[in-house]
Amino acid sequence: MAKYTLPKTEGRAKRGRFETVHGTVETPLFMNVGTVAAIKGAVSTEDLRQIGCQIELSNTYHLHVRPGDEIVYQLGGLHRFMNWDRPILTDSGGFQVFSLADLRKIKEEGVHFHSHIDGRKIFMGPEESMQIQSHLASTIAMAFDECVENPSPRDYVERSVDRTTRWLVRCQAELDRLNSLPETINREQLLFGINQGGTYADIRIRHAEEISQLNLPGYAVGGLAVGESHEEMYHILDEVVPHLPQDRPTYLMGVGTPANILEGVYRGIDFFDCVYPSRNGRHGHVYTWHGKLNLLNKVYELDSAPIEEGCQCPACRQYSRAYIRHLLKAGEMLGMRLCVLHNLYFYNTMMKEIRDSLDAGRFETFRKEHLSSLEEGQKEILDRAKRGRL
Amino acid sequence: MAKYTLPKTEGRAKRGRFETVHGTVETPLFMNVGTVAAIKGAVSTEDLRQIGCQIELSNTYHLHVRPGDEIVYQLGGLHRFMNWDRPILTDSGGFQVFSLADLRKIKEEGVHFHSHIDGRKIFMGPEESMQIQSHLASTIAMAFDECVENPSPRDYVERSVDRTTRWLVRCQAELDRLNSLPETINREQLLFGINQGGTYADIRIRHAEEISQLNLPGYAVGGLAVGESHEEMYHILDEVVPHLPQDRPTYLMGVGTPANILEGVYRGIDFFDCVYPSRNGRHGHVYTWHGKLNLLNKVYELDSAPIEEGCQCPACRQYSRAYIRHLLKAGEMLGMRLCVLHNLYFYNTMMKEIRDSLDAGRFETFRKEHLSSLEEGQKEILDRAKRGRL
Repeated sequence: MAKYTLPKTEGRAKRGRFETVHGTVETPLFMNVGTVAAIKGAVSTEDLRQIGCQIELSNTYHLHVRPGDEIVYQLGGLHRFMNWDRPILTDSGGFQVFSLADLRKIKEEGVHFHSHIDGRKIFMGPEESMQIQSHLASTIAMAFDECVENPSPRDYVERSVDRTTRWLVRCQAELDRLNSLPETINREQLLFGINQGGTYADIRIRHAEEISQLNLPGYAVGGLAVGESHEEMYHILDEVVPHLPQDRPTYLMGVGTPANILEGVYRGIDFFDCVYPSRNGRHGHVYTWHGKLNLLNKVYELDSAPIEEGCQCPACRQYSRAYIRHLLKAGEMLGMRLCVLHNLYFYNTMMKEIRDSLDAGRFETFRKEHLSSLEEGQKEILDRAKRGRL
Repeated sequence: MAKYTLPKTEGRAKRGRFETVHGTVETPLFMNVGTVAAIKGAVSTEDLRQIGCQIELSNTYHLHVRPGDEIVYQLGGLHRFMNWDRPILTDSGGFQVFSLADLRKIKEEGVHFHSHIDGRKIFMGPEESMQIQSHLASTIAMAFDECVENPSPRDYVERSVDRTTRWLVRCQAELDRLNSLPETINREQLLFGINQGGTYADIRIRHAEEISQLNLPGYAVGGLAVGESHEEMYHILDEVVPHLPQDRPTYLMGVGTPANILEGVYRGIDFFDCVYPSRNGRHGHVYTWHGKLNLLNKVYELDSAPIEEGCQCPACRQYSRAYIRHLLKAGEMLGMRLCVLHNLYFYNTMMKEIRDSLDAGRFETFRKEHLSSLEEGQKEILDRAKRGRL
């Protein structure tokens, strides 16, 4: 079993270390999302090494429909397929089944649905999700759960959470079985449970206490950032995180903006993941410590400065805002690649600075200092750019 | 003025060295095409350094319409814009004016046409082409010429070639003037003349002799690979190259396949350029010493070998055919990027091997050895792959 230690805390914020069969990671960390075993924006695992990524995240549902988890298994698992030797986390497929698939039908045994690629019928339940993730041979497999949107009726959420608990027990049994098979690629695959309960703090807390009994190597808070306000999300974290095991990593799924991450760390989160940096990068929106810039804006046409002064990412070390803007306007893929590289580097570097501030016992100062400037936003940035001060 | 030396020859094949204000290049060489100041397929100048590119080629017409050569000038020229300190060659815009633009009208003073981007009216003649290229500040500016398609009527070709000669004289005068201005970025910009004449050897030879009188730092053979057969192209090269100055680099424009390049070197060509490696790469067609592979073919679904065994390109050192095929099938940009990187590396490496063989006095053996295997083509490759021998 993996080993999680907590060299330092500050309030509820955790400065953790997680040892896995694919190496040790330092938390808090941001997982870089490679949906179909590739980071969108022409970014490779070689690039991920350059920009300080610790854990790559891939999507079980997408890989199941293409190229097929059997293919990945025959090629030796995701690590060999992508040429990445550090940890990989795979989601359970549940989120995509509920958000992408057509005509889904939820039953006790699992979910019947149609592939969004070719429409063929697929069934996925806890056992199937574990079998697929075992084929993919990720470091961390996520439990198969139902992610309900917010807000949802209380009685639906209660019934759903109870089923998610029963599914988790089945996931654990199935992964134990798979990890005992000689033909399994990664027999030390870890299962993380997922807390659900919508925006109902009492349901969340009861669920957190139930799943904590299963003694899993890590726990996630799921079902947030799916419709509720930031304040509701922070409130739920305030309520539920203290009921998850302190001596295991805690993962806030699908979150979020730099400010969300600072607030999540403050509330005891170790792992984050989000498509924002790559999706925004592909649209020319780039992160800086003073907010997001839209490089398509004409104000950057003759701007020979890098995206952010002093940034050591592959884009900023070499290219100007004006050049990247030109590439984006001309529809050149290189423009998207440079923006995505910058954004992922920004996220990974921000996590490192958060860890450094925790190590130095000054996270609270760091959080307060950056929360406001990170949210400055485009308008103020543009005003300053026009006044020649950026 | 640049210095061209010829350390070695073998038959008509030239092993040259060309010293420019942006560094020395070794010929024969392949210029990597970055149409709008970016190599299509998310490839950057940083990547070009990694894969052995000696000269980057950009397109005057495209940069004139977007972002505008005035913008590039204000940003310090193409070298600073792209962050590339080695030589850059810009074409004259002529080829694109004749192939892309709508409603063109050729007159003695130049060409009136409409932009293919926004339809606005543009006029380009020899002076305008030189002014734009001077703004771009490339190392080598190409003369503004008319590239006629093959075959064209003899009397049209004769009249066109005479005009191209008159245009060349005007290009030379204008570039001399621009190079004398204090505000010019690269005051050592070089002008290459272009030989035309369709498939009429006698017209070509007369034209080559006329333009050789102008004592330019380099000469190109244009108007080939535009409709005629390979045999006609080789015949024209046999006829015309001996009438161009031996002590200047000779550039065969827009050519070609690996076999075309071997045949061009054999006939005394120093510089080549072609969109094949990047265009084919974006479609999953990759070059090997045994012909082109189509990575989309199902035969590669479980193929864990690199594109080419032993290849040191960024794709082959890290990723398998199966992985790249998956990326291409899933429409991930990374698949295109890896194929383009491989193809450009293949072309640059092939040129290095050609130079090495010339240095060792064994080019003729090298040419014969590789001509047939390079043309093996997809069918035989697939047969061998199916038999498990590739």
